[in-house]
Amino acid sequence: MTTAATALSAVLDHVDAGLDQSLERLKALLRIKSISTDPAFAEECRRAADWLVDDLKGLGFAASARPTPGHPVVVAHDEAGEGTHVLFYGHYDVQPVDPLNLWHSDPFEPQIKDGPDGRKIIVGRGTSDDKGQLMTFVEACRAWKAVTGKLPVKVSMMLEGEEESGGKNLPPFMRDNAEELRADIALVCDTDMWDRETPSITTMLRGLVGEEIEITCASKDLHSGMFGNAARNPNQVLAEIIASLRAPDGTVTLPGFYDDVAEVPDAIKKQWQGLGFDEQAFLAEAGLSIPAGEQGRSVLEMIWARPTCEINGMIGGYTGDGFKTVIPAKASAKISFRLVSGMDPVKIRAAFRKHVEERIPADCSVTFKEHGGSPAITVPSDGKHLQQALTALTSEWNKEAVITGSGGSIPVAGDFKRILGLDTLLIGFAHTDDSIHSPNEKYDLDSFHRGIRAWVRVLAAFAE
Amino acid sequence: MTTAATALSAVLDHVDAGLDQSLERLKALLRIKSISTDPAFAEECRRAADWLVDDLKGLGFAASARPTPGHPVVVAHDEAGEGTHVLFYGHYDVQPVDPLNLWHSDPFEPQIKDGPDGRKIIVGRGTSDDKGQLMTFVEACRAWKAVTGKLPVKVSMMLEGEEESGGKNLPPFMRDNAEELRADIALVCDTDMWDRETPSITTMLRGLVGEEIEITCASKDLHSGMFGNAARNPNQVLAEIIASLRAPDGTVTLPGFYDDVAEVPDAIKKQWQGLGFDEQAFLAEAGLSIPAGEQGRSVLEMIWARPTCEINGMIGGYTGDGFKTVIPAKASAKISFRLVSGMDPVKIRAAFRKHVEERIPADCSVTFKEHGGSPAITVPSDGKHLQQALTALTSEWNKEAVITGSGGSIPVAGDFKRILGLDTLLIGFAHTDDSIHSPNEKYDLDSFHRGIRAWVRVLAAFAE
Repeated sequence: MTTAATALSAVLDHVDAGLDQSLERLKALLRIKSISTDPAFAEECRRAADWLVDDLKGLGFAASARPTPGHPVVVAHDEAGEGTHVLFYGHYDVQPVDPLNLWHSDPFEPQIKDGPDGRKIIVGRGTSDDKGQLMTFVEACRAWKAVTGKLPVKVSMMLEGEEESGGKNLPPFMRDNAEELRADIALVCDTDMWDRETPSITTMLRGLVGEEIEITCASKDLHSGMFGNAARNPNQVLAEIIASLRAPDGTVTLPGFYDDVAEVPDAIKKQWQGLGFDEQAFLAEAGLSIPAGEQGRSVLEMIWARPTCEINGMIGGYTGDGFKTVIPAKASAKISFRLVSGMDPVKIRAAFRKHVEERIPADCSVTFKEHGGSPAITVPSDGKHLQQALTALTSEWNKEAVITGSGGSIPVAGDFKRILGLDTLLIGFAHTDDSIHSPNEKYDLDSFHRGIRAWVRVLAAFAE
Repeated sequence: MTTAATALSAVLDHVDAGLDQSLERLKALLRIKSISTDPAFAEECRRAADWLVDDLKGLGFAASARPTPGHPVVVAHDEAGEGTHVLFYGHYDVQPVDPLNLWHSDPFEPQIKDGPDGRKIIVGRGTSDDKGQLMTFVEACRAWKAVTGKLPVKVSMMLEGEEESGGKNLPPFMRDNAEELRADIALVCDTDMWDRETPSITTMLRGLVGEEIEITCASKDLHSGMFGNAARNPNQVLAEIIASLRAPDGTVTLPGFYDDVAEVPDAIKKQWQGLGFDEQAFLAEAGLSIPAGEQGRSVLEMIWARPTCEINGMIGGYTGDGFKTVIPAKASAKISFRLVSGMDPVKIRAAFRKHVEERIPADCSVTFKEHGGSPAITVPSDGKHLQQALTALTSEWNKEAVITGSGGSIPVAGDFKRILGLDTLLIGFAHTDDSIHSPNEKYDLDSFHRGIRAWVRVLAAFAE
């Protein structure tokens, strides 16, 4: 038995005893309004980075907030441990909070509340995505340090501040600091558990292409009585373009969109069937009952293994109270594509732009703005660290940990492979009802508590 | 020769001499932010009504601001004149001013500027629509009073404050006060001249049906990574509905939409051809070059004699800076139909709602909000007052006044006929480049000056 294995029980006890203090530290981080996409909150992003540096220094890490053209990257090292060297990734930035009026409490004044079924939940922006998840790892390190005076393995951390805003600056940062960031395995805590009782490790992630388009028709807003019928209405042009992106059968219509998409192997489909995924329950959580995507495919396939096109935002003309009979000069939309393994973000972006340009009337114009692009990734499911982590998670929940896909995109996992040559284990404790990116985001107190315990166990397992 | 005809020249001279003071009064009215559609400006609407009451009382009118469930209606009478009794209509409310950043000066701090071709223009919200036009009539009355001590004909006024916000309260007000509002002819000053040199009276006006729809899919905003493809996106649903409203040939697709639309008689088409309307110049004013409406019809026909469907506003999802990978719960749009003679607003609204409802997925929902509805109207072109007014306008501009159609909707003209049995003369001095409902709205100083002089002449003509 290793030293780590011997100490494990004491470290877990320490986590339990110190949970209140762990929560206070999390709350302090949650109060910082680190909305990365809005330039008005740049200083808050800087504050969140500094807070993490101070906290990690207090744990004995060599930590610093490293400048980028955008928000800083926190890098920290404690390499006194044995054997395996892990590189942990999380992000300290959060999504905007609008519509603010739908929040039941201040998004930046985190509260412990009673959730459904009497579960305790932590409510606030970033509780689940990703400050709460990030802090499970930090607290696990703290507990090891407190009990044994050191970490069981070598630990480095890279905590970014632009995950929610395209994250353009991280890949160059990783390239520039590749030597310093060398490790044996990357760990990312930004995903869900399979369900409330079943821990999971995600090995399939969709990629993302984000685009913003602005269509200009007239040179100024027009009166629809005077010009209606004769002047091109950009709302109509935009709506027709958006409508043209989906066929009636739910498929995306961009030429070549599915060219590089492989069908899911029967073996994996079979394994997914064994997961007991309840389509109706999944949709019901969102107040829906009918799957919207490609006809003839399961919901799990739709969200894990099929690409999609979503209109994340659109606006044009008068949208205030009352009515204004205007033909606006401009209309715009934010559109994203989720990609699956094999699809090239560059190719998809080009196909989209061509599709749009072909539909712009000759006397109108369109501009495009890029918002991130990353390919999908697939993590090999037979590695030593994956197996060790699965065993550790299984021990914590006393239920077999499963391997899953995810509809979300975590571009950094692709970057770890491409830039640093690292495989990534995506281990997270969030739940589908956490309302991430939405009002009243929450993280189960149990996710936070057992998340810390799970990392304590994973670190011990890696020391074996 | 009547007394009025004798005095005419002196009254016109008085107008010329007093133009600066007339402008100062107009500016005072323009400074009041009477945006009727936005409840935040209700008090400003009240102030505009009170300002008019005070001004008209000063001229010897029996004037008062009469309450409605919305903004007040100013009613004023001076019936000391001879013969004909006119009922003048204008509106003191204005459109919202967004996008504010496109204004070159404060919309509510009117300025006299040099316009294109060295013309002087008055810039500010409401200069053209409709405070500037309304005040041409008030100033004409003032000049008559100043020179002759009385008005040449009996004059009543009805100045409303909800023309830009559906005007739901005016028809009941007119019904309740029909006896008091009795007159021989209604005069409305809310339309354009044919061109800068040619005065005109509008005898065809399109009607309007305004609708606001809100589509709800999920019960909350969703993460597009987790739910994308599986959850219905209301932006997509709304875009498909909007796209479905127009066929590729530019026609509106609502079943029965054109059933009651008559073709323009050849004789009238021929008269229109004689007007020398320049399609390219008209579109170029808006920075466009290709007519957007029904293929195979002239632009003049499109905007005067054909119905249309316009998307005045639409919004859904994240529309702030940056990017947010959300599938919103809701999306909404403001949509209006311009109607031509024969079309029933009730029938068109019902057809629209049915069309939308048929396209809402079974697990989603839609709500409708009505924003005004009025039929198109046609004024008989052979009446005595029309001929008198045409002669008066011809004298002022020394160029034959013409009879025109208009793409805009002035519901009150239909109400005058239906409720009070009155024909309406639509006489206005605005120009198509006035940017009404848009940033940098203006009114030519010449429109204001000669508009006052024109009304002085029209009132004299009615006294003959």
